[in-house]
Amino acid sequence: MKANLPNTDLPRVVVIGGGYGGITVAQALRKAPVQVVMIDKNNYHTFQPLLYQVASGGLEPDSIAFPLRKMFAKQKNFTFRWAEVDRVHPDKKCIETSIGTINYDYLVIATGSKTNFFGNKEIETNALGMKSIPESLDLRSLILQNFEEAHDHQSTEVQDRLMGFVVVGGGPTGVETAGALAELKAHVLPSDYPDLDLDLMDIHLIEAGGRILKGMSENSSQDALRSLEKLGVSVHLNTLVTSFDGSVVETKSGEKIDASTVIWAAGVQGAAIDGLEEAIEQRPNRLKVDKYNRVEGYEDVFAVGDIALMQTEEYERGHPMVAPVAMQMGEHLGKNLAQMFKGAPLKPFRYFDKGSMATIGRNKAVLDLGKLHLRGIVAWLGWMFVHIFYLIGFRNKVVVFVNWVWSYFTYDKGTRLIIRPYKRKDKNSKEKVAAG
Amino acid sequence: MKANLPNTDLPRVVVIGGGYGGITVAQALRKAPVQVVMIDKNNYHTFQPLLYQVASGGLEPDSIAFPLRKMFAKQKNFTFRWAEVDRVHPDKKCIETSIGTINYDYLVIATGSKTNFFGNKEIETNALGMKSIPESLDLRSLILQNFEEAHDHQSTEVQDRLMGFVVVGGGPTGVETAGALAELKAHVLPSDYPDLDLDLMDIHLIEAGGRILKGMSENSSQDALRSLEKLGVSVHLNTLVTSFDGSVVETKSGEKIDASTVIWAAGVQGAAIDGLEEAIEQRPNRLKVDKYNRVEGYEDVFAVGDIALMQTEEYERGHPMVAPVAMQMGEHLGKNLAQMFKGAPLKPFRYFDKGSMATIGRNKAVLDLGKLHLRGIVAWLGWMFVHIFYLIGFRNKVVVFVNWVWSYFTYDKGTRLIIRPYKRKDKNSKEKVAAG
Repeated sequence: MKANLPNTDLPRVVVIGGGYGGITVAQALRKAPVQVVMIDKNNYHTFQPLLYQVASGGLEPDSIAFPLRKMFAKQKNFTFRWAEVDRVHPDKKCIETSIGTINYDYLVIATGSKTNFFGNKEIETNALGMKSIPESLDLRSLILQNFEEAHDHQSTEVQDRLMGFVVVGGGPTGVETAGALAELKAHVLPSDYPDLDLDLMDIHLIEAGGRILKGMSENSSQDALRSLEKLGVSVHLNTLVTSFDGSVVETKSGEKIDASTVIWAAGVQGAAIDGLEEAIEQRPNRLKVDKYNRVEGYEDVFAVGDIALMQTEEYERGHPMVAPVAMQMGEHLGKNLAQMFKGAPLKPFRYFDKGSMATIGRNKAVLDLGKLHLRGIVAWLGWMFVHIFYLIGFRNKVVVFVNWVWSYFTYDKGTRLIIRPYKRKDKNSKEKVAAG
Repeated sequence: MKANLPNTDLPRVVVIGGGYGGITVAQALRKAPVQVVMIDKNNYHTFQPLLYQVASGGLEPDSIAFPLRKMFAKQKNFTFRWAEVDRVHPDKKCIETSIGTINYDYLVIATGSKTNFFGNKEIETNALGMKSIPESLDLRSLILQNFEEAHDHQSTEVQDRLMGFVVVGGGPTGVETAGALAELKAHVLPSDYPDLDLDLMDIHLIEAGGRILKGMSENSSQDALRSLEKLGVSVHLNTLVTSFDGSVVETKSGEKIDASTVIWAAGVQGAAIDGLEEAIEQRPNRLKVDKYNRVEGYEDVFAVGDIALMQTEEYERGHPMVAPVAMQMGEHLGKNLAQMFKGAPLKPFRYFDKGSMATIGRNKAVLDLGKLHLRGIVAWLGWMFVHIFYLIGFRNKVVVFVNWVWSYFTYDKGTRLIIRPYKRKDKNSKEKVAAG
């Protein structure tokens, strides 16, 4: 069955994925003589850097999402379809999707990345990832459910486990999540749960390497570590998590940590699609592309963002899997394609590193800008400014700003709601049926 | 098993339900020498009058919900438990809940109301209610899913059905929902769905009685009817819906309307709990109370709000099931109980009707204030002011205000997100697996 798309004589560029890579490609093609068809399994763009604030009750989910149709409402050559892609048939120049087959003249794969559990099925079942809005809402529910459930037990041991949180992975997501949990413990939970002994709440951050924020400067790593420890987070460096059965985390050295909640931010892998196996670099499941973002071995298939592995002298193992790379690759490819339709040759991509940053909590952040290292309130204000700047939609910017100002003055995080209770997948846990 | 609650020598007042009835009782008891224990199946209070705006993409769900623990964080004699109540044992003075048995000295039932399908199981399966945040989110998803799915069909007949919406019930909820759908059709959907013929979108409002808004003045009914018709809503008066199989609505007179979505706002019934059967008035499932809100036949069980049926000379069939009644009953009962602990006699409840109102759309509303009838922009501004005033939480007020100002100037509704796709319960429909 063929998907129902508007007929046109123009060449069709199919873009899979509405993340930063996909939307910048589509936007750069707005004046090109092509039909742009975007496919996404969600009808919205997700601003991933703030997912952890949804999980920790600081922001409402709707303020970090933006409807894709609305984003492109004024772009005449653009068509959106809400669908999942099953397979690419590069020989037939078509993709198979949940709404039928879609032919393409040019294909842009911008499917991003997904959580990498490194093949550990037990951890995959029992831990939570944080790569999508439903996942961050599940985590928000689970954090609150744990405290609600802790009231049902007299045993300190059980309470201790319910209030044990382990964040695995010392990158920006892990650091920011651990910091947000520590702030919940310090400022929010004691007044919400007067019947619980909040001293039982433990927050662990586990990193396999020798320092956290290893993509940033040594100074930033040190500052972030000190800030986290000051907030009461137990940071474990050079530590590998080997198992989590839903109640105990075990590390390679044999250490055991009681915790019912594990947030897995230890790695991502490309969200590859079936049909292009020959171009995939198994670790970490990314599509090899040349300097024009063309997928190896295919003339008319391109890839941008996290899914694209472009190996250059400077980035031997590919570019970092972060939003700025996706944005720059997307815009560059879109412009390249637009030029190509005019008969111009493609230009090679070159990443311009604007720096990197992470926030740990109130007035605490680290920021690297070339050789410049900033920390404290200046870095924190910079972090907020950049995030509001890149967040899509004026309404979203205002709502996030209101929330942040509100939280700053009240030390509060407003959205501690269990709207859809999370059902644990492990068998040990109590089935709690609630809400409607 | 006994639920784990703080020990105290004080008498225990258990309040079931955190709607307006429950929270006003609890607040009025803040200085009384009692332990107040509130039980709710959600950890938040829902501002029900704005659920329809969540369903129609105008507001984010988090802005009309407020965490119950946060609401009472400063009230020392208050304890919250997130649980479902299974049964009351008035003889043993305890309730059975999902977290164990809870004893009470005084019990306040404030469980509110639920959708009344009048025993029609087919309609209950295929139609959607709108009494909770998850339900309004399901409706938001389904409305958008219908338009997405319409692209998958070439047949005008199928598209017509997918874009057919029937709202059953001409009370404020039905009128406001129909108006919001009409505004989506006029201002939002055409730019979102350029590939669809939006003329196929039909909005029907079906009312069993002879006029809509029958709780309001004749003038208000007429004005609301005219406004809805001007917005393109087909209003059917004196019409009874007899069946809905997921694709066709049938009325008693034999009329058939193609529609895949039916929003059931045709009636509510008390959300009664097992164990107090003798005090229940079957239609509409409410607990009979005396003028002190004491449940008939029980010395220490009280009921307030929608669940309470207080028959007086003025309100022979009980008070209207609306928020102002719940608030006034709750505050009155809380004060009465507080006085009772001081040895004072109970005072009878008397409802002070502050008027009623409904909004139809942009600049369009009706408002009855005693003999005064207002309409148009004045009534509309009044409606917004009152709703923001009663909405709980300063952050929520600001976020809702920002959304409304934004919508007013842009004619836009910002949150057209399918975060958790809705799965239809009928068998005819296509299974659409999406999102993660």
